[in-house]
Amino acid sequence: MKRWNGWGDDNTGYPLPQPAQAYLEQKLGRGSAPPDVALETAVRRVPAAPLPGHPLITTDPVDRLLHAAGQSLGDWINLRGGTVPCFPDGVAYPLTEDDVRQLLAYAQKTGAMVIPYGGGTSVVGHLSAPEGDRPVLTVDMGRMNGLIELDQDNHLADFQAGVRGPDLEAALRARGFTLGHYPQSFEYSTLGGWVATRSAGQLSLAYGRIERLFAGGRVQTPEGDLELPAFPASAAGPDLRDFILGSEGKVGIISRATVRVTALPERETFLAAFFPGPDSGMAAVRALARSSMSLAMLRLSLPEETATNLALAGGGRLIDLLNRYLAWRGAGPDKCMLLYGAVGGGKEVNRALRRAAVIIKEHGGVPVGARPGHEWRKNRFRVPYLRNVLWEKGYAVDTLETATTWSRVEQTVAAIETALRDGLKESGEQVHVFTHLSHVYPQGSSIYTSYLFRIDADPGETMRRWQLLKGAASRAIVRCGGTISHQHGVGLDHRSYLAAEKGTLGLEMIRSVCKTADPAGIMNPGKLVP
Amino acid sequence: MKRWNGWGDDNTGYPLPQPAQAYLEQKLGRGSAPPDVALETAVRRVPAAPLPGHPLITTDPVDRLLHAAGQSLGDWINLRGGTVPCFPDGVAYPLTEDDVRQLLAYAQKTGAMVIPYGGGTSVVGHLSAPEGDRPVLTVDMGRMNGLIELDQDNHLADFQAGVRGPDLEAALRARGFTLGHYPQSFEYSTLGGWVATRSAGQLSLAYGRIERLFAGGRVQTPEGDLELPAFPASAAGPDLRDFILGSEGKVGIISRATVRVTALPERETFLAAFFPGPDSGMAAVRALARSSMSLAMLRLSLPEETATNLALAGGGRLIDLLNRYLAWRGAGPDKCMLLYGAVGGGKEVNRALRRAAVIIKEHGGVPVGARPGHEWRKNRFRVPYLRNVLWEKGYAVDTLETATTWSRVEQTVAAIETALRDGLKESGEQVHVFTHLSHVYPQGSSIYTSYLFRIDADPGETMRRWQLLKGAASRAIVRCGGTISHQHGVGLDHRSYLAAEKGTLGLEMIRSVCKTADPAGIMNPGKLVP
Repeated sequence: MKRWNGWGDDNTGYPLPQPAQAYLEQKLGRGSAPPDVALETAVRRVPAAPLPGHPLITTDPVDRLLHAAGQSLGDWINLRGGTVPCFPDGVAYPLTEDDVRQLLAYAQKTGAMVIPYGGGTSVVGHLSAPEGDRPVLTVDMGRMNGLIELDQDNHLADFQAGVRGPDLEAALRARGFTLGHYPQSFEYSTLGGWVATRSAGQLSLAYGRIERLFAGGRVQTPEGDLELPAFPASAAGPDLRDFILGSEGKVGIISRATVRVTALPERETFLAAFFPGPDSGMAAVRALARSSMSLAMLRLSLPEETATNLALAGGGRLIDLLNRYLAWRGAGPDKCMLLYGAVGGGKEVNRALRRAAVIIKEHGGVPVGARPGHEWRKNRFRVPYLRNVLWEKGYAVDTLETATTWSRVEQTVAAIETALRDGLKESGEQVHVFTHLSHVYPQGSSIYTSYLFRIDADPGETMRRWQLLKGAASRAIVRCGGTISHQHGVGLDHRSYLAAEKGTLGLEMIRSVCKTADPAGIMNPGKLVP
Repeated sequence: MKRWNGWGDDNTGYPLPQPAQAYLEQKLGRGSAPPDVALETAVRRVPAAPLPGHPLITTDPVDRLLHAAGQSLGDWINLRGGTVPCFPDGVAYPLTEDDVRQLLAYAQKTGAMVIPYGGGTSVVGHLSAPEGDRPVLTVDMGRMNGLIELDQDNHLADFQAGVRGPDLEAALRARGFTLGHYPQSFEYSTLGGWVATRSAGQLSLAYGRIERLFAGGRVQTPEGDLELPAFPASAAGPDLRDFILGSEGKVGIISRATVRVTALPERETFLAAFFPGPDSGMAAVRALARSSMSLAMLRLSLPEETATNLALAGGGRLIDLLNRYLAWRGAGPDKCMLLYGAVGGGKEVNRALRRAAVIIKEHGGVPVGARPGHEWRKNRFRVPYLRNVLWEKGYAVDTLETATTWSRVEQTVAAIETALRDGLKESGEQVHVFTHLSHVYPQGSSIYTSYLFRIDADPGETMRRWQLLKGAASRAIVRCGGTISHQHGVGLDHRSYLAAEKGTLGLEMIRSVCKTADPAGIMNPGKLVP
């Protein structure tokens, strides 16, 4: 069953080897988490719902608890500590677009606010119910999950937007196609959610971000349906798809989405190489991003992440051997691991990887073959499960990300890491911080930073630590001129940093679009542009 | 000097060989154009301007006449017949962003409406002054044409947005870079104009449309400046660049634009092949568009265009030989010419072209080598000059374009061509119509149709013919589900067809963005979304 207060299925674990635990103890001190609040206890804290009855809506407190939060660390702290501040008053599971239309009409009539809900994987507070007197209805799109049509002539597929990653790929793969969109949340997140939050997948270098894959569809708004025809391209004024991409539920509910699909590639290969340090590694990925070879992935772990990953892998003889081999080849304590891959025809993949190897060697990189790439591929959607076991060991994990131009990457990484590392100095707590670059462009790169700190016995104190750290890192991003999000969106957690990049006038423009489709402001209130 | 009532520099001709003229006479009958109204006469018809004085604004009637129209066929008919209905009351040539700010303040104070003007190459009526009592100020951005900064570290270049194609490329090429954006209007159109109209260049297969190249910049609006930071990518809500792309001057004046640039390629090679008919040709370009090889251009002329191009090339022994060789290889009267090209490193270009040749041959194509590609490359920006000489011979030429999914291409081409071919039946006039596909995507293709008809002695009758044809073809596009423009925009000429693809709600969303930046509605009134 899906965990109600953690990540993923509760039958799937991610055991932490003993040396990994020792590594963290050495970094952060011994951890210990207070016992989680039980589901039954949490459910008892859900207040009675003031929502008028409707055949499509349940007010069952379990449904309401399960839809009260997403997957941000703040959400976790609230769920596990029993401190979720607000709950939706009802949850609906529409099966058809007509159901969605009825639910929007109901909300308009009753004055309820509407929170669209895809897979529940938001890490920035998209799903939280706002405080206040107005009733709140969460619309869970998870049962609108079918393939409507695969148009093989035009390489387009039309889905109900609540479809999750695995179901979407299964429907396409059965017919020889793929979307190729693999965010880390792939197993739970939905097509509609990807569009609403401008998601980027692990192979975006080959397939593009969701912006490129989303060809059209239908958005159901309080003011009626918005149809987005799937033209291959158009110059007929502003493209309305771009008013929906990143709209975070504030314009309406994306009920169906047409996506651009690709014939299934013959092969996917992922390899690894190590660089002596971050400078050579970054120079190499920049050169690779600018080359015209068709790579599908470039992911460079900076030194601390490289060391952490090797430690979490459990050490042992093989890792020792690898470390010694790499040190002999010049990649010592500052070494950076690069994962790189290609997808396509067998010959193409070979050629792309051969040419990549040349650039890697030119920059002092040491190829180590397919094993780490194979491991990465196997675990690519399992990493979030690590959060569960770390929590049990007493460590909170959060990640945050930005993107910036190449010349600012180094200083931005340093500013974020310093803000986090020093963020709990006042309470004498350590923070373990590490970073990788996972989406690279000719102009710059995303920066993805993970940080771990000890959970306190008091959930309020853990929350305070998290907010301190998140705030310090977000301010560092803004100060360095990065975007507040490369791939997760704005929601509640990033909204106060948005003006820095959009400006007052820009925010007003976004508000005007939302207001046109939703004059009463009932859609996902408080998020993105309050 | 730049022609005031035609295309391009008046020292550049495009002589029409005798056999080409005979070909047109056979298709359309002998043509004859009435004498053009002289510049002096046209200038005398420009009425006195009611505009209050301002040091940055000239009310000289020559300036006002030269800014009264673009390059649509309707514009030509009016310019050459002396029937331009309205003129801007003043023209300003700002040199700095502060000048632009002053001009917008002046417009707000005096109640003037503002038409942003780039290179004057609009073919859809973007530049026409509206009728009515309110004064109209055209802001010609052509003197804001400098490179502000080439950021080699990040492959970004920041330009004043009035820079024209050749100046932009010269500034980049001197430092080893290129933008790679080559619309046919390249010699005159400007970076700001490309952004405002969602332009597509001839090599968009390699470099992308302007949507991909435009990274950020500044838009000056009546409500203040909108800054667009040049992030490599972002998920921080809707992307404001997409509110500006296609905004056609209605949000504000794009004063600077940051673009993504690429290292100059080692080589550019363009080749040609012929297919026995449109089916095999289209199947081949579709397969090529879906292959992952790095081609830079695919342009397929359908049979009538292939025949017309060969005829306009003047026939002669070489063309005869080619025709006989092709017929012998199976490409007879229905043959279709494909131009295809690649840019990049020498080895890459060779490999891409070799692999393309395999797919071409699989579809029955006959490669004919580099000569037609070389000719195309030499004349790629000269084709519009043909309009001048054809007009002198008594023939009006217009082009229109759309994009649609692959399965609709054939029926859409047929519907457009039939609408045009039969469009003047009532007056017994012939229309010569031909089409190519110039921008291909995995999901579909652009359709670019040219049509010629005889000019009448009465400019009013020529205008009536054009409006009949343009209307019939536009309705055919809408009926077939195509976009009303793939690469030219909306302006005046396409605005009544826009609701078919945007919907009422969609149009309101676009209006709301314009209104936020321009509450008084002074920016380019009547265009896009009146």
